[in-house]
Amino acid sequence: MAKYITDTKDVFFNLFEYLKIHENVEDLGEDDLKEVIREFDKFVENEIYPARIPGDLEGVKIEDKQVKVTQSYHKALKAYYENGWFALAMEEDIGGMPAPMSIYFLINSLGTGANTAFMMYPGLSKAALNLLLAKGSQQQKEAITGPMMEGRWGGTMCLTEPEAGSDVGNCKTMARPLDNGKYNINGVKIFISGGDNDLYENIIHLVLARTPGAPEGVKGLSLFLVSKYKINEDGALGEINDVICTKIEEKMGIHGSATCELSFGENNNCEGTLVGEEFEGIQNMFLMMNEARLICGIQGESQANLAYELTKQYAEERSQFGKNLLEHPDTKRMLLKMRSMSRAMRALSLYTGDLFDKAQKDPKVEEEIALLTPVCKAYCSDRGFEVSVDAVQVHGGYGYCTEYGIEQFVRDSKIATIYEGTNGIQAIDFVMRKILKDNGESMKNLMAKITKTLSSPSAGNWSNQVGQIGKVLQNGQGILDKFGKSAQNKDFDNILLHSTDFLRFCGNVICAWLLLDQAIEAESKVGNASEEDKEYYQSKIDDFITFCRHYLVENDGLATLILDESSQELGMKI
Amino acid sequence: MAKYITDTKDVFFNLFEYLKIHENVEDLGEDDLKEVIREFDKFVENEIYPARIPGDLEGVKIEDKQVKVTQSYHKALKAYYENGWFALAMEEDIGGMPAPMSIYFLINSLGTGANTAFMMYPGLSKAALNLLLAKGSQQQKEAITGPMMEGRWGGTMCLTEPEAGSDVGNCKTMARPLDNGKYNINGVKIFISGGDNDLYENIIHLVLARTPGAPEGVKGLSLFLVSKYKINEDGALGEINDVICTKIEEKMGIHGSATCELSFGENNNCEGTLVGEEFEGIQNMFLMMNEARLICGIQGESQANLAYELTKQYAEERSQFGKNLLEHPDTKRMLLKMRSMSRAMRALSLYTGDLFDKAQKDPKVEEEIALLTPVCKAYCSDRGFEVSVDAVQVHGGYGYCTEYGIEQFVRDSKIATIYEGTNGIQAIDFVMRKILKDNGESMKNLMAKITKTLSSPSAGNWSNQVGQIGKVLQNGQGILDKFGKSAQNKDFDNILLHSTDFLRFCGNVICAWLLLDQAIEAESKVGNASEEDKEYYQSKIDDFITFCRHYLVENDGLATLILDESSQELGMKI
Repeated sequence: MAKYITDTKDVFFNLFEYLKIHENVEDLGEDDLKEVIREFDKFVENEIYPARIPGDLEGVKIEDKQVKVTQSYHKALKAYYENGWFALAMEEDIGGMPAPMSIYFLINSLGTGANTAFMMYPGLSKAALNLLLAKGSQQQKEAITGPMMEGRWGGTMCLTEPEAGSDVGNCKTMARPLDNGKYNINGVKIFISGGDNDLYENIIHLVLARTPGAPEGVKGLSLFLVSKYKINEDGALGEINDVICTKIEEKMGIHGSATCELSFGENNNCEGTLVGEEFEGIQNMFLMMNEARLICGIQGESQANLAYELTKQYAEERSQFGKNLLEHPDTKRMLLKMRSMSRAMRALSLYTGDLFDKAQKDPKVEEEIALLTPVCKAYCSDRGFEVSVDAVQVHGGYGYCTEYGIEQFVRDSKIATIYEGTNGIQAIDFVMRKILKDNGESMKNLMAKITKTLSSPSAGNWSNQVGQIGKVLQNGQGILDKFGKSAQNKDFDNILLHSTDFLRFCGNVICAWLLLDQAIEAESKVGNASEEDKEYYQSKIDDFITFCRHYLVENDGLATLILDESSQELGMKI
Repeated sequence: MAKYITDTKDVFFNLFEYLKIHENVEDLGEDDLKEVIREFDKFVENEIYPARIPGDLEGVKIEDKQVKVTQSYHKALKAYYENGWFALAMEEDIGGMPAPMSIYFLINSLGTGANTAFMMYPGLSKAALNLLLAKGSQQQKEAITGPMMEGRWGGTMCLTEPEAGSDVGNCKTMARPLDNGKYNINGVKIFISGGDNDLYENIIHLVLARTPGAPEGVKGLSLFLVSKYKINEDGALGEINDVICTKIEEKMGIHGSATCELSFGENNNCEGTLVGEEFEGIQNMFLMMNEARLICGIQGESQANLAYELTKQYAEERSQFGKNLLEHPDTKRMLLKMRSMSRAMRALSLYTGDLFDKAQKDPKVEEEIALLTPVCKAYCSDRGFEVSVDAVQVHGGYGYCTEYGIEQFVRDSKIATIYEGTNGIQAIDFVMRKILKDNGESMKNLMAKITKTLSSPSAGNWSNQVGQIGKVLQNGQGILDKFGKSAQNKDFDNILLHSTDFLRFCGNVICAWLLLDQAIEAESKVGNASEEDKEYYQSKIDDFITFCRHYLVENDGLATLILDESSQELGMKI
């Protein structure tokens, strides 16, 4: 197994030189925050990364109706909670250690890159806890907060059903009110990550279900807390609830993550409690869903970054035709592309994480987060997968063999393009809801930010690339105008046909912009830097140029495609 | 498991309406050839396809130093030989059944799409036999032809060594002459497909090795026949040879194919015989290598075609949001793209197969085959992988689960981009050897063919697309001029930096051309066709338009990238 490596220079550059997150933190200084990151990085290297390949090889199994997770995860998860990593960026009054969201994004990224399947357990538990802290009743919060913070209990989100995949509103699971104020839950959910496992003593399922007489579609859905073991009044575990794992899926990857089919109420004895108001299930679930979508983006970003580091390590050690792989132009091209894309995604992910911190002072920032969430989710998961594929390619035959852990990136990263709403759904959300529904306001604001960077004097160093981005923005405006007209004519199919391509178009330009902004910062420092830092700053400039040449250039074709008035596919027959 | 489906209409259109292969066959008419294809297709459905998922799940194992292959393959392989499929397109005097090469390409494609790992055993055996028939001594041919034709003996190609992957010339395996005219073989080969297995009684390894005092590099390599069991004078199996399988690789996919590390001569008792002349090993091996490269292309093409058919089947049966998946524009877009790309690759592959038949009358055609071989290999394996990824995406969560057999396409198809020379190596071969080395003659001839089609009156129906291809050809000429200049200045790194992108550029335009040529044929028939045929002919026109809109359009960006004079990556540091 190759040595775990983090590009700490680039991490610190993003957080402290570019975003300057420490300027908005009161209790912790730059050095403290760096120390936290270094400490977590060591933890990842020593505890989380070593469980990556074992988790892939051992997978999960059902024994005596109980799902068993690889032992390597048990040890790592225990240490994860004990060392306080779960508590990071949680409120102090529940035992958390407050930290900027960008730090949480980063911590999650380091862990996820090193072991995606493992990090899903605490990641989803945290998202479930956050939802309950925001929307749960006092009683619910009192019951679950302590045990979930301590890592005794985990959490899941239960949306998908056999006939209701993307189409969540088609949910058939029923919740019938009982006399005691609770609900009797009945239905089958599939593809539930961590749906059953032996890592936690109890599991808090957040379940979408329909109350009797509820309206059809998503408007009739309510959210329920259903625990694996019932919870007594005093908070102790009661009898087992009527939730049975009826199947675990064998999958392409994330073998260490238990993907369960859960049957609620097979014996008519499944009890749940309402979370928030009746019929507000989908809005409430979206609190968790949006977090999960951002984590999908991080899955792509983080695996790409680690895959790049391991590939670089391999290339440095391997020679062919009497030359190191790095000296072969075709291999060098692949590695430079991998680096620029991986770092671009890191920039996007941390920029978005930082928006959460900014949103506390300026609620308008929420709209930018909403706009960027589907981009983070879809663009980073698609691109993360592509970088993983490149990692296999540079490794050649060794990349295809399991023992080196490289092809695992391909298998583990693919799922992020599918779950929490397929990338096709993300593109529809992006165009229809995040752009057209608010008349393109948030999009205009983002484009104004980009234009401002382009016209800054320091951008003049890269006039070709700045011109390229400017042309892309013009095309982008043309596409928005076209979409606006189609929407006015209620010709929505024409928009939907191109939404995936437009999301990629936007992802390319947003990433190019962030890399330009970072190149400007790097350029301002390269002159007075130490030799080592000089090399790093130069690499940031190189990333920007490489990205424009190899990725942003795709936007030429994408614009031609989307602006072509024909949209002939709509009239074609399959 | 989804039902196996072949797009027989498109297969027949390619062979009999477009290529008109029956016009050059003496003994068999169009109906006879169609009957052969239908019969083989049934065989694939009943024998080869059912072994696909079992082979993936069971893989291969070593027991008592013997590699054991899944039982499902044993049954299918026996039937494959017994039914005469191995003998197809082989010479009559050795018990073959002569047929056009395009028919062999097709047969191989149907089997490979349905079960790639399985088809590698007879595929490589056939390639080894063909090499020996062309270059072996009379004695060698007499010894191996019968048993290999009957399927009692199989064959392998042994090139790769731990330090010599792409860099074959770095081969360390030694062949020292013995007194009896044979050679003592000593060395380790890795990644040998079918290197050991229990499907065959004996295995004929074709091994590159170096004789004492041989020149360095590929020029010093000679080719040897090394059999698993020594062969007695009377042709019977003798004692076991000193070839040991020391490891089987666990891989991302093609689990049913045994990928072996072979140790030759650990006990100094490994005997081999020279094939062809000393120092002509690499040229001779290339006879087999070129066949294997074309099969890599077929692996991409064929898996894409079957993945498309299964995905279409799934989409037809699945509804979301009250509408069939086919009616959702984003899903429809994916399926139309998959179809146009899969069929484009089929057109390319069968066109190339047909060139082999044409080459018998016109040796100049050999050059076109040489030019297209790296395109078939790299373009079809890359694109086949991409279509497989799309198949998973349309299937959503189900696509990611093993039991449906869809993610297996992704895992099984990826290897074709790596083995038999990585796609990076193909691109270098394409640009440096196949284009620059003959001053672009074959490329010019191919471009003339394309131009001729563009200027045919029937192409006028698609003036936009014809204009698009014309512009692409201009850009292509510009790139060739740039490469020519770089070559004159011995600035080869500048060419090598862009060879992969240029191969993709050319693959796009060659496929667009073939689809246009086929659309012209379809357009001429759609008016007088039956309803069912009309729908098919219209789909060929739709494929062409879809391909231009979604794939050929990439060439805008690719041309910008390659024609950009900066090539700044060469000066960057990783």
